[in-house]
Amino acid sequence: MTRLSIKKIIAEDIIDTDATVKGWIRSVRNSKKFSFIVLNDGSSQNNLQIIVDEVLPNYAEVAALLSGSAVSITGRLVKGGGKIPQIEMQGKVVEIIGKTDESYPLQKKATSLEFLREQAHLRIRTNTFGAIMRVRHHMAMATHKFFSDKGFFYLNSPIISGVDAEGAGEMFTISTLSSDITKAPKTKDGKLDFSRDYFGKETFLAVTGQLEGECYAMGLGSIYTFGPTFRSENSNTTRHLSEFWMIEPEVAFADLDEIAELATDYIKYLISYALEHASNELEFLYNREDATVDKNHMETLKHVRDSKFIRVTYTEALEILAKVDPAVKKFEYPTTWGSELQTEHERYLAEVHFKMPVIVTDYPKEFKAFYMKLNPDGKTVRAMDILVPGIGEIIGGSQREDSLEKLEKRMDEMGMDKEPLWWYLDLRRYGSVPHAGFGLGFERALMYVTGMGNIRDVIPFPRTPKNCDF
Amino acid sequence: MTRLSIKKIIAEDIIDTDATVKGWIRSVRNSKKFSFIVLNDGSSQNNLQIIVDEVLPNYAEVAALLSGSAVSITGRLVKGGGKIPQIEMQGKVVEIIGKTDESYPLQKKATSLEFLREQAHLRIRTNTFGAIMRVRHHMAMATHKFFSDKGFFYLNSPIISGVDAEGAGEMFTISTLSSDITKAPKTKDGKLDFSRDYFGKETFLAVTGQLEGECYAMGLGSIYTFGPTFRSENSNTTRHLSEFWMIEPEVAFADLDEIAELATDYIKYLISYALEHASNELEFLYNREDATVDKNHMETLKHVRDSKFIRVTYTEALEILAKVDPAVKKFEYPTTWGSELQTEHERYLAEVHFKMPVIVTDYPKEFKAFYMKLNPDGKTVRAMDILVPGIGEIIGGSQREDSLEKLEKRMDEMGMDKEPLWWYLDLRRYGSVPHAGFGLGFERALMYVTGMGNIRDVIPFPRTPKNCDF
Repeated sequence: MTRLSIKKIIAEDIIDTDATVKGWIRSVRNSKKFSFIVLNDGSSQNNLQIIVDEVLPNYAEVAALLSGSAVSITGRLVKGGGKIPQIEMQGKVVEIIGKTDESYPLQKKATSLEFLREQAHLRIRTNTFGAIMRVRHHMAMATHKFFSDKGFFYLNSPIISGVDAEGAGEMFTISTLSSDITKAPKTKDGKLDFSRDYFGKETFLAVTGQLEGECYAMGLGSIYTFGPTFRSENSNTTRHLSEFWMIEPEVAFADLDEIAELATDYIKYLISYALEHASNELEFLYNREDATVDKNHMETLKHVRDSKFIRVTYTEALEILAKVDPAVKKFEYPTTWGSELQTEHERYLAEVHFKMPVIVTDYPKEFKAFYMKLNPDGKTVRAMDILVPGIGEIIGGSQREDSLEKLEKRMDEMGMDKEPLWWYLDLRRYGSVPHAGFGLGFERALMYVTGMGNIRDVIPFPRTPKNCDF
Repeated sequence: MTRLSIKKIIAEDIIDTDATVKGWIRSVRNSKKFSFIVLNDGSSQNNLQIIVDEVLPNYAEVAALLSGSAVSITGRLVKGGGKIPQIEMQGKVVEIIGKTDESYPLQKKATSLEFLREQAHLRIRTNTFGAIMRVRHHMAMATHKFFSDKGFFYLNSPIISGVDAEGAGEMFTISTLSSDITKAPKTKDGKLDFSRDYFGKETFLAVTGQLEGECYAMGLGSIYTFGPTFRSENSNTTRHLSEFWMIEPEVAFADLDEIAELATDYIKYLISYALEHASNELEFLYNREDATVDKNHMETLKHVRDSKFIRVTYTEALEILAKVDPAVKKFEYPTTWGSELQTEHERYLAEVHFKMPVIVTDYPKEFKAFYMKLNPDGKTVRAMDILVPGIGEIIGGSQREDSLEKLEKRMDEMGMDKEPLWWYLDLRRYGSVPHAGFGLGFERALMYVTGMGNIRDVIPFPRTPKNCDF
């Protein structure tokens, strides 16, 4: 008998035929002469109800199955009763493949997200995580489709890196010496002798693929990365991961305006694609008991998809914030020009003031990385952050400094060692062109679309301080 | 004036109109009254020839431009002369954006692949690397399309890992303590105290995403990973990288036969897609002076795409090898049952004996990982390797042991510590089902399709022992 996926059965309305389905039991309900099995096979959010008659030879064993058990069921697909008739199966043969017992951690009783984080190897078997991870899949596909349709080339930037590209110092060191330092070669001052390490130098997990992305944009024109990036900062928040995925497009001959437009189009495309391909999943997630977004979050997303994003400069944003009546909203941090935009400010702008994603541009150079293009005012740089309601910063980008002289001057001002970045400076030495790009934190975008409140719930195996159990 | 990509101009045969093109000069040839600029913008393998008349105000400067310089040129697109008329541009305005000088490393004279490896930040500006990296892009897109069209979900397995999933011990340690061990907490025996490290334990760069893939297949049914994996083995060969990308599908309810078929279909799809989307690039690569494949490699690929893959068991493979006349081919390593298949054997099978990709199955358990399903003979496991001509092993896969008892027994036999893999064993404890999967080394597949002879040339920034300069 042909095995069919539940997704296919429902999408193609396959009835009045025999078929085999294989999956995991969500629940078993026994009535007098029948057992009702609710089966999910992962192919979609939909379950299939299978009615098993007590005449089946192994009926007693089937009726006693616990949720989480794996079965293969052959039977007839029919349209069931009820106000909105649903497809169900009249089971003829139930093959029990793998049982669960009372020790199975995912029992029918409500399991909290906190509890499920400790069951990261099993939580994909719940409706909630099935929904989240299918949305994740579709948004990843949307990303590749969006960029490749526009003629961008996918670039795998290196994960093992020899430089601190952001200058933030929050990096993991990679070594083959550190596993047993008693046997490792050391320098005179007692440190590991990285010159005798695997790569002959100290190496790190990459915090960004941008610099390598710039190299490739100078040959391929438009590229994007989509890969894991890493931060060793000690942040235990609902919005930080030590390992997260980023999408970083880089476009030769583009300025900040073009990249802001690209970022806007991309976010809208992600939303459209998720609404088109995973509306069942989103519907389910927004209606969860402990959902952190409105049940009508889908309407909010549609509004964002169809609206023009607000665009303000940092200077304008500070003016808005300075005018806020402290009786309405009292900020903890200052709102005078030259102050950093804090999360409270970002969220006020996006959630309260504009109620829309906001693109803030032209930040003071002191807050931003060395590679951003200086504005003619000498004080601000051609940077942008995109802030979304509920999450805060989701995208950071900039036009890059393409003048060798200005870039070297800025690196000197910041006391940076130019030598390790000789290759990056070469891009300005040979055939330099204006170029710009941005980075989108994939998990932050997922939080926004799925409405999940904790970033650890939108990545399969979250890595955070003291947490690498799976 | 609208900027057009050279790809679009040629694909849509855009002529008799004015347009702007932006890119990098491949060459400038000056005749009496004209300068002929060959421009590439990265959008495709095609260059555009632009004829610049000496009447242009900045003609002298333009005529003196060196290759690698960036320009923006506005002019009229016309059909040129010649036997096969090509589109060219009559330049009206040439804006010089970024020059190169005599120190530019990529001069017109032939630049060897070895030399270009030292210029990894610039080599994408050559025709060869433009071609390779566009093929890489298309094969990545093919991968996502192949699996998502079949209902597989893309899984981002973790990069930072707490276990040695292959048991091979060839792993990089990740730490925030190792950068300065003089200040780091240590255990009594003088080692780094990983319990006080960032993750509270020793962590590694993942060698595979398979185990986590299995977790997710038990919920989503069919998944695939496509991400970076790492090996710290000290291999300086043309086929090894320390950091490489792998595609690892995992399918619940599947056996080895189904996964062998999936792998075959996938390889054929990769070939079809590359031929369809990057034939210009492949044509260029096969005709390079130092190409390591025949000029008609495209015919070879078409043959592979259209043929049934050979399938033999390990036992049959050894019988074939044992019969080889030493006068024809003398093997260095033994060919008796129980000997490992060496590269010389693999290549003989694929290149000489079958002249086709070969699927070898059912290897002795001693050569394979702990998680592979034991055959009824008690000696061999349900493993497969796919060997391709010119490369050797490109895919390794297996049906997984789904019996908790048998898996634990095998781990005990191998002296493995079961505790760190408690979560992996849980998959066999609760709702266990037959399942199978494989891993394809993306760069090996790229070598096969592009015909490049060194794996360092098919990844943007190769990482190998003592080599992490970029």
